[in-house]
Amino acid sequence: MTSNRFALENQKALMAVSLGKKPADLIVANGRILNVYTGELTTGGSICVTDQWIACVTEDVSACRGPDTRIIDAEGMTVIPGLIDGHTHLANYVSSKEFMKQVIPDGTTCLVTETLETAYPAAGTACILDFIESYQNQPVKVFFTVPMMVSPGQHFLKKSDQDLDLLLHRDDVLGLGEVYWQALLLEPDTVLPLISRVLVLGKTVEGHSAGAKNRKLAAYAGAGVSSCHEPIDLTQALERLRMGMYVMAREGGVRKDLTAISTIRNMDVDLRRMILVTDSVTPEFLMEKGYMSHVVQKAIDLGFRPVDAIRMATLNVAEHFGIDHLVGGIAPGRFADLCIVPDIRQITPKWVISSGKVVAGNGQCLAAPRDHVYSEKSLSTVTLNQAFSAADFTIPVNSDAEQVQVRIIDKISPLVTREKTAVLPVIDGLVQMDIENDIIKIAAIDRVDPSNPRFVGLVSGMGLKRGAIASSAPWDTGDIIVIGADEADMALAVNRIGQLQGGTLFTSGGNIVAELPMPIMGLMSDLPVEAIAERMKQVNQAARAAGCVFDDPVLSLVTMTSSAIPYVRICEQGLFNLKNGNIYDHLKEKNP
Amino acid sequence: MTSNRFALENQKALMAVSLGKKPADLIVANGRILNVYTGELTTGGSICVTDQWIACVTEDVSACRGPDTRIIDAEGMTVIPGLIDGHTHLANYVSSKEFMKQVIPDGTTCLVTETLETAYPAAGTACILDFIESYQNQPVKVFFTVPMMVSPGQHFLKKSDQDLDLLLHRDDVLGLGEVYWQALLLEPDTVLPLISRVLVLGKTVEGHSAGAKNRKLAAYAGAGVSSCHEPIDLTQALERLRMGMYVMAREGGVRKDLTAISTIRNMDVDLRRMILVTDSVTPEFLMEKGYMSHVVQKAIDLGFRPVDAIRMATLNVAEHFGIDHLVGGIAPGRFADLCIVPDIRQITPKWVISSGKVVAGNGQCLAAPRDHVYSEKSLSTVTLNQAFSAADFTIPVNSDAEQVQVRIIDKISPLVTREKTAVLPVIDGLVQMDIENDIIKIAAIDRVDPSNPRFVGLVSGMGLKRGAIASSAPWDTGDIIVIGADEADMALAVNRIGQLQGGTLFTSGGNIVAELPMPIMGLMSDLPVEAIAERMKQVNQAARAAGCVFDDPVLSLVTMTSSAIPYVRICEQGLFNLKNGNIYDHLKEKNP
Repeated sequence: MTSNRFALENQKALMAVSLGKKPADLIVANGRILNVYTGELTTGGSICVTDQWIACVTEDVSACRGPDTRIIDAEGMTVIPGLIDGHTHLANYVSSKEFMKQVIPDGTTCLVTETLETAYPAAGTACILDFIESYQNQPVKVFFTVPMMVSPGQHFLKKSDQDLDLLLHRDDVLGLGEVYWQALLLEPDTVLPLISRVLVLGKTVEGHSAGAKNRKLAAYAGAGVSSCHEPIDLTQALERLRMGMYVMAREGGVRKDLTAISTIRNMDVDLRRMILVTDSVTPEFLMEKGYMSHVVQKAIDLGFRPVDAIRMATLNVAEHFGIDHLVGGIAPGRFADLCIVPDIRQITPKWVISSGKVVAGNGQCLAAPRDHVYSEKSLSTVTLNQAFSAADFTIPVNSDAEQVQVRIIDKISPLVTREKTAVLPVIDGLVQMDIENDIIKIAAIDRVDPSNPRFVGLVSGMGLKRGAIASSAPWDTGDIIVIGADEADMALAVNRIGQLQGGTLFTSGGNIVAELPMPIMGLMSDLPVEAIAERMKQVNQAARAAGCVFDDPVLSLVTMTSSAIPYVRICEQGLFNLKNGNIYDHLKEKNP
Repeated sequence: MTSNRFALENQKALMAVSLGKKPADLIVANGRILNVYTGELTTGGSICVTDQWIACVTEDVSACRGPDTRIIDAEGMTVIPGLIDGHTHLANYVSSKEFMKQVIPDGTTCLVTETLETAYPAAGTACILDFIESYQNQPVKVFFTVPMMVSPGQHFLKKSDQDLDLLLHRDDVLGLGEVYWQALLLEPDTVLPLISRVLVLGKTVEGHSAGAKNRKLAAYAGAGVSSCHEPIDLTQALERLRMGMYVMAREGGVRKDLTAISTIRNMDVDLRRMILVTDSVTPEFLMEKGYMSHVVQKAIDLGFRPVDAIRMATLNVAEHFGIDHLVGGIAPGRFADLCIVPDIRQITPKWVISSGKVVAGNGQCLAAPRDHVYSEKSLSTVTLNQAFSAADFTIPVNSDAEQVQVRIIDKISPLVTREKTAVLPVIDGLVQMDIENDIIKIAAIDRVDPSNPRFVGLVSGMGLKRGAIASSAPWDTGDIIVIGADEADMALAVNRIGQLQGGTLFTSGGNIVAELPMPIMGLMSDLPVEAIAERMKQVNQAARAAGCVFDDPVLSLVTMTSSAIPYVRICEQGLFNLKNGNIYDHLKEKNP
């Protein structure tokens, strides 16, 4: 993507336009221009673009104006650099083409996405590479980070050094994706060499230090992790900045931390290492709020100086990733990524220019995103090898007792869990749910390798009184995850995911009540964003109608596998305790 | 040098100390600590160091204090990061060992040096590598840039791709050394591929854009050059900052630009891309003023906020070169490079800690710099193949005329030259000097390849009435350069340089009046700094006593070859005109 920037013919063409020996392809004239390097808002200059790049910003454009030069008149408007999202997850419900349609008019011209999710659906790097390819040659630039490939309790994520090198040496791969701090502290012998391998290449190591502080945070930062998008308040943000980390204030689909962190604007603190990110958005978010323009606008509305807010989504991000010679500012040699807004305080793009092309005007997408044909491998990632029945979701115990004390995942918030115990009846050697007391079943089934064990456990706090909710896209795993108050509905849900080769759905009374097919790696739909949002709404409504107490039952479901959120999670081997890295089964007495 | 930082055993040891599982080797306690990332001056924290690195900054050191932990009490003092010189030339009179002795107590713990000078004395990279080696495993870290190896008029500087790769892949080589802007614009087909080669490795391209502005500067910056240490005033500094370049404000032996540029502190301009550098110092400067502590103190005295001044010699430099994970701030994982000063406004180090070792206290060097044994090749770089005589410095003309109009280098300042013409008498077919009118001789003799042509030209403005001044260390060339009012003294001077295998000296009346032997690559002496300064003073005094009008006759001599200073220079093929890249000989009528 960026590899041809410094090809001799491009360098010479750029130089010819800078020197006034060749006309520009595009001139953005008459606007105020934000210089993120100095912080100045300048007038009188015009931005001369050739091919994909900025040749110069000059007050005298006569030498740059030829018969074929397109002029964009920015009179009365302000030109800022195209916005950058420094941390997101694009393998998230929406296909590359449909995502592009949404993000282009928003003024976001560069994204750095995790690839973690695409590492699970296939052994090797087939899906990762297909995902990367799906975002190549699109109207907006996308960079990638390599998945850490070490997730506690996940045996199949240790990819080969060859696979890693293949990815790390790509010019569109900027470093190692978010390294969970618990993984680093629990498995230093595995994680540290990975970090070393990335740093010696001059690339970055992205962080995820939710909840870490003091000595543990120092150990984590000291290992070479240079960013964190998990601070949820000023204290956490400041501690990370002081340790030399970049703080990514998150405002997206999963969490909205910007308001809490924004009080940093009142401290006399340098903001050069503050970054704004989404950490992914939902289809609803995309439709209702937009993308980075919304986040930057919110930062301004929260009282950040506009130049600081814009820098947090442009120059600061580019500097963190070492790509500030390519993006993040309006200067010679950079990609011509420009966002023309009414005013520096009003981030509603009138024109968006990406790599020198006018890709959006007045909110309309003017570019045609490429329709990526996903690989056969990416479209067949669910292997079940059996039709599931209710009997597959029983919990047998080797005991004649009529009841047994069991270990339960207790959801104490939409995302956070703790461990609790309960005494449940045993009938015919099988532990029974206690729907009345909100103790129902949860199962993790490996969809990549059906020969792997699977685990049926117990969960409380969801509120579901009937039916089952399931998804092929839980976080940090290649499992299908299903939560249900009825074993037959759980089986139906899993079987349907197998038929669809991926999806998120709700079943009840033997029927598919609502479903979103997700045939792309089991993670993404090929539907338009609007349709995805509508289908998701239907699944969530169905789950809530069946008693689920959370606003977004699907989110509460898919996060049950994430080793990033405290503190008891499920994997196909059992219950994973993030505090100590151990895996437990149901029986309380069995484990310490 | 830095390659073992991320070795597994070092990473684990660092983590153990951060976590409080292993005592620190060194604790800097009770001081105020400058956090360059946030700009805060904090109290109550202690810096815990293990081996070469900072493990953590913590308020509770109990877990870090062991029986063998050394405590430095910084009560009442302020700890700032060790200072960094982002642009210097260390192959400059002083050997590595003697330079170290001076720089260690100064609080400068990291330097980025050009290697340009060492590229000339030998074909291939033998001297470059020996020079690099001379600064390895020293008490203070030195990084390097690869010489551009393209100097107009210098045929032997085009080194092979293999040589370049050998250098560029070293972890102590940070990028390409200063690229003269004229060279880039005159020879894009040669220079641009070199820039591309460096940028795709993720390394930086250093600039030298003296006098460039507007479109030419844009063409230069757009090619990927990301710094310039040549601005001499606010206007030049601002123009470069606005183009996204790092501006290196220079305060050293050759030029002192900081005062002029310092008015930028009154602009509402972001200073993150401002850097302080020396661009090399003279032995006198080192003895009288020190090194970066002097430059930072001067910036503070000129009115920069102390935190900004210090950042310009720490974090900003590290960020520019992409080594901020290693140096430039007091944070976990960074090298323990610390400077303990009385106050943030008073940069007179009481203690200096470099890579975790206490290397200086109260101005005294406590570390033993390594005595590098330079290679045989480095110690035999002057090959003359003949004894020179006065006849070798004549200027014959193919004319029977009694006088001839000739082209002369006119020194209009100690450094800057222009072209002028004069009519000189011809006797026996030889052009005669006109000492009364200050037209004397200058010669360039290739000391690497005696089969190359040599050139004898004419110079005015020096003021020399007798004798000759010569050096084996002129800038940007492997030539010996000699200026004289007497051909026999010129011959004596060159022959003496051959005997010494390098030196700078003044001859008069058939005698060596003053000399500094420089046997290391013909560039450096093995004497202590004090002796070098004394010898240099003697040479300069002798030249001034013989009429030279400049304060520093040696500097005026050695810069006569530099294609970095406008605008007529000498090389072994003739007079080099920087405006058009052409080489001329004496005869005015011969060339356009």
